[in-house]
Amino acid sequence: MFTGARTANDFADTPVGDDELTAVWELARWAPTAGNTQPLRVLYVHPGAGRERLVEHMNEGNRHKTRSAPAVAVLARDTRFHEHVPVLLPFKPELKDVFAADDALRAETATFNATLQAGYFILAVRARGLAAGPMAGFDAAGVDATFFPDGRYRSILVVNIGHPGENPWFGRLPRLDLDDVLQWV
Amino acid sequence: MFTGARTANDFADTPVGDDELTAVWELARWAPTAGNTQPLRVLYVHPGAGRERLVEHMNEGNRHKTRSAPAVAVLARDTRFHEHVPVLLPFKPELKDVFAADDALRAETATFNATLQAGYFILAVRARGLAAGPMAGFDAAGVDATFFPDGRYRSILVVNIGHPGENPWFGRLPRLDLDDVLQWV
Repeated sequence: MFTGARTANDFADTPVGDDELTAVWELARWAPTAGNTQPLRVLYVHPGAGRERLVEHMNEGNRHKTRSAPAVAVLARDTRFHEHVPVLLPFKPELKDVFAADDALRAETATFNATLQAGYFILAVRARGLAAGPMAGFDAAGVDATFFPDGRYRSILVVNIGHPGENPWFGRLPRLDLDDVLQWV
Repeated sequence: MFTGARTANDFADTPVGDDELTAVWELARWAPTAGNTQPLRVLYVHPGAGRERLVEHMNEGNRHKTRSAPAVAVLARDTRFHEHVPVLLPFKPELKDVFAADDALRAETATFNATLQAGYFILAVRARGLAAGPMAGFDAAGVDATFFPDGRYRSILVVNIGHPGENPWFGRLPRLDLDDVLQWV
């Protein structure tokens, strides 16, 4: 899952069923978030008219990949995630009001934890035997206006999903040396 | 790894070796980042004087856990990650200068991708058979002044790591219903 898979840039024509996409979330949802806030939301965009509307907002270099992917997920943060706090953190329901009263804390919590969850999501795609092609290159304001017009959700990442094609991988790019990343005290 | 593990709040006394901690990173490093930027840095804090300095900056409720954990990782973003671009993205070395010239883009890229990598890191701890206790409750400015005094790295998350203890788990908290998270178009 970590060392065998790579970011996919081409997929087989094999469809990805809605049940497979639901199963991805059924894994990813269990990994931890601060205060169990779970601010990530997932919009799956089927091929067809919806997909074409999404492609319009992708950067040029990502359009073909997005158009041809069997499945595409738009990952977004819920700016009003705190409404769920009384259910998700039943021993501390007052945290809902703390978030409601502090816009900066609410935004920071949503962004940080939704991004953590995006990491979990990408690995969950792989854990389900699928290939993931995450893309940060898109017009988020355009995507949000198109798919989340009430302003509650804000897109953070688009992930193409499919079964690996004949030649899906670029050569693997280098990773930093351990000494560039790890320190010890 | 997703469904069996939970956030650990108590650990066995069994030590965690530096080789095990290195092995965690050797998994996590392979998961993808935008432009292969890899901005996450990891500081492992051994028990002893260094650990006590870290504990001082943890929120009250996290101090005992942090003190007693066999291993602790401070995850940070490298604000000058772009210096590695020519090595990490050899077909587009000029991206280094794009980041150098745009402070907002550089900060956003570091924060987003380091946070994605924090998600990978937590799952890599689990994939290595260890338990992870991630904590957002700490004084980041204090941690940075103590461990990263030159200002280059900025802490984003502290993760306790160990082998699970006798009673490490709180009861599992609920997850959002699928309908609260998934949408389809």
